[in-house]
Amino acid sequence: MNAEGRNAVREAIASDKTVDKVIVQNGLRDEASRTLIKEIKESGVKFSFADKAVLDKMSSTKKHQGFIAVLSEFEYSELEDVIADCVENKKPIVVLDGIEDPHNLGSIIRVCECGGVSGIVIGKHRQAPVSDTVIRISEGSAAHVRIAKVTNVNSAIKTIKENNVFVFSLELGGESIYKTDLTGAVAIVVGGEDTGVNDLTKKLSDGVITIPMLGKINSLNASVAAGIAVFEALRQRL
Amino acid sequence: MNAEGRNAVREAIASDKTVDKVIVQNGLRDEASRTLIKEIKESGVKFSFADKAVLDKMSSTKKHQGFIAVLSEFEYSELEDVIADCVENKKPIVVLDGIEDPHNLGSIIRVCECGGVSGIVIGKHRQAPVSDTVIRISEGSAAHVRIAKVTNVNSAIKTIKENNVFVFSLELGGESIYKTDLTGAVAIVVGGEDTGVNDLTKKLSDGVITIPMLGKINSLNASVAAGIAVFEALRQRL
Repeated sequence: MNAEGRNAVREAIASDKTVDKVIVQNGLRDEASRTLIKEIKESGVKFSFADKAVLDKMSSTKKHQGFIAVLSEFEYSELEDVIADCVENKKPIVVLDGIEDPHNLGSIIRVCECGGVSGIVIGKHRQAPVSDTVIRISEGSAAHVRIAKVTNVNSAIKTIKENNVFVFSLELGGESIYKTDLTGAVAIVVGGEDTGVNDLTKKLSDGVITIPMLGKINSLNASVAAGIAVFEALRQRL
Repeated sequence: MNAEGRNAVREAIASDKTVDKVIVQNGLRDEASRTLIKEIKESGVKFSFADKAVLDKMSSTKKHQGFIAVLSEFEYSELEDVIADCVENKKPIVVLDGIEDPHNLGSIIRVCECGGVSGIVIGKHRQAPVSDTVIRISEGSAAHVRIAKVTNVNSAIKTIKENNVFVFSLELGGESIYKTDLTGAVAIVVGGEDTGVNDLTKKLSDGVITIPMLGKINSLNASVAAGIAVFEALRQRL
C-alpha cells in the first residue's frame, strides 16, 4: 500500500507506519513541494527521484502531486506483550540500539526467531524499520517473532526494568556471558555495528555482558553477536 | 595484479590463484576468444563484458587480447599447518562445504578469527574464494586467520581424520552441540545456505552435531550458525 500526495506522504513520515521509501517527481520547484522535500530529507527515510511517468504508473489515485511513499505492511507488536512473554516464560527480550543496516536487522530477526526470544524491541531513530527488504532477509521469520517499535529505547528499557526484567548490555568490558545467569527474565541490548550500545543506555541497564574473544580483530557482526548471546541464553535454559 | 591475454587468463582460472573476476571485451567473435569465453563460463568465475577502451585503460601490458583477469593477492595457508595448530593447541578447524556468497564467507572468517580457530578449510568448487570483497567484509580478519584452499574438501577431511582430529558436520538431526565435547582436536564442517553439508561429506565425518532451535522457521544464516558453534567450542574450552 502506498501513501500518495503531499499530505498523505507527510503523515506517513510522521506516523508509526513503516515507510520503505519515498519517490519524488523530478523537477518540482513550487514552494509546497520544496518544503516537503526538505522534511523528507530531515526525516531520514530513504527517497529517490523519478520522472512523472514513473509516479503516474505507480499511482492508484492518480493524484500523487509528485510524491508517493511506499509503505510496508508489517504489523508491530506491543511492548507489554513482549514483556509479558518474557516474564511468564523466561524467554529473553532482545533490544536493538541503532541497527541501521537492513541486512543486519533481517539477520537478527532470523536468529531471534530460531533462538526462541519473547520479542525484539527497536527504536524509531538511528534504526532500520521492518521494511519489505528486512522481511525478505529474515527469510519469513519476521512473521513469527514479536517486534515492538518504540519512540524511545531508553524509556522502553525503564518499562522493562519496572517489570522486574534484568537488562544487560552486550558490550566489551563486562562479565562473560558464560558466567552470567541468563535463565531468568532478561533483556539483552545489542548496539549498532560502529557505535555499540550508547552510554546512557549502558548506564540504564543492570549490567554489561561480554562475549569472550581470542582473536586480534575481535569485532563481531551485530547479528552474529546477537546469535551467540541468544543461543547462550537458550543453552542455559535447556 | 592482473593476468592479461588469453593464455594468462586461462592459466589463472586453472591455477590456485584467486580470480576476483574476468573482464571480457565486447564483440569478440574469433574462434580462440569464443573458446576461452566458454571456458570462463564453465569455470564458474565471475566475469563481465566491457568495451575495449575499458580494458585498454586497465591493461599494463597493452597486450590483453580482450581478456583481463583481476587477481586477489590473498595468500592461502597449508592444510598441514591448520591441522598442526588444531592438534597441538586444541583449537577447532572450520571446514566450509559450499559457501558461495562472498558476504557469508567474509562474515565466517570474521567470526572464526574472534573465536580462535586453528584455521579455515575451503574447497575450490561451489565455494567463494578469498577475493578482495571477502577480505573487505572480513574487516581485515582474513589476514589473521589461516585459510587453506584445497582441491577436494572430502580428501582434506580424510587427511584431517588421519591426524586424529574428530570431524563433526554441523547439520539438523544430530547430537546437540551443547552435549558434544568440543574441547579436543575437532573440525566442524559448515554447509552452504541452501544445500547444507553434502551427503558424502556427512558420511565421511565422525558425527553430526546440531544447534537446538525453538522457532518455526529454524534456519540460521551460515555465518551465524558457524559463530554459535565456534563460540560453543570456545565456551567449553574456557
